[in-house]
Amino acid sequence: MGESGAGPGTVRPGGRTARVRAAVLQAAGDLLAERGFDGLDLAEVARRAEVGRTTVYRRWGNPSALAADLLSDMADQSLPRTETGSLDGDLLANARLVQRTLADPRQGRLFCALIAAAECDERTAGALHRFYRTRIAEWAPCVEQAEERGEVPPGTDHAEVVRAVSAPLYYRFLVSGDPVDVPAADRAARAAAAAARAGAFTR
Amino acid sequence: MGESGAGPGTVRPGGRTARVRAAVLQAAGDLLAERGFDGLDLAEVARRAEVGRTTVYRRWGNPSALAADLLSDMADQSLPRTETGSLDGDLLANARLVQRTLADPRQGRLFCALIAAAECDERTAGALHRFYRTRIAEWAPCVEQAEERGEVPPGTDHAEVVRAVSAPLYYRFLVSGDPVDVPAADRAARAAAAAARAGAFTR
Repeated sequence: MGESGAGPGTVRPGGRTARVRAAVLQAAGDLLAERGFDGLDLAEVARRAEVGRTTVYRRWGNPSALAADLLSDMADQSLPRTETGSLDGDLLANARLVQRTLADPRQGRLFCALIAAAECDERTAGALHRFYRTRIAEWAPCVEQAEERGEVPPGTDHAEVVRAVSAPLYYRFLVSGDPVDVPAADRAARAAAAAARAGAFTR
Repeated sequence: MGESGAGPGTVRPGGRTARVRAAVLQAAGDLLAERGFDGLDLAEVARRAEVGRTTVYRRWGNPSALAADLLSDMADQSLPRTETGSLDGDLLANARLVQRTLADPRQGRLFCALIAAAECDERTAGALHRFYRTRIAEWAPCVEQAEERGEVPPGTDHAEVVRAVSAPLYYRFLVSGDPVDVPAADRAARAAAAAARAGAFTR
């Protein structure tokens, strides 16, 4: 938990700070998933994290800053992309990952709360957009590699293909209320790959 | 305003009721766009609509019911689809309509507020999903006609193609924060049409 580099048995201030942050962000994520952004009470976060209130108020100050730090940590902790050797396989892996995240009860409610909060809170919106920029940049090289292999036309917008995989799943999740299931994920991957091959994403 | 059928010069209770509803829903929409769902105060709606508070409380009761009625009215009032005679043209018309709606300051903020409210309010969520079901059903026949013309393979899921046009625009609007501009709309239409032609949306 952020303690790499500390010798065995040593306790460094950095280690304690990292542990406090991890506990606070875990509690903040739980509370957001349970109660939404309006329920992100700093005193309750401190109680659940077993950390002093003063520490939480001094370090994070308000719910927006706490949500932004959680999103920054989620970006840092997020998984590296899967490499399958083909565009179809890579986009399918990405679609399934997004589907699992949105369909997971805790994660789904957490993203829902963060996205809803971003609608009315600029700081959360900035942090949310940075989180997705990080995730899209992580996966864009799979389209770059597909272009090198000749699977998609030269000049394809790599990031836009990755956005196209996620978009139908988030649309169902946030807008239309249709199920975010495995068939929807597979169709999203298939449609993005077909459109990319047809040159719909060239600049 | 809902008065068709009333003779000239007559004032029917239905006419007054319709006028009151129109004024209340206009005020509710303005307030949602300005202040979000948390700012949807029924007394303030009554004041702006120049309607008695008692009428508003008796008829709508709470912000969720008012937002649900607004969405129901938006579904009733929404424009018929454009028919251009080709799949590319029809999907482009749909994409441009969605883009204009989301990029319009009042409409964009209104949808944002309603979508954010749906995250934490079941009644608003139900009304939101019904609104999008209505809109998708309005446009799905353009894909059905394309299938009849042989532009897309038999067995294409018509509604899913329409969802695929909107999805990238809502993803930018709600999730990634990328601009919802005309090039994004045109790319969304192009990608949905290409994927449909390639058979990505067959059942």
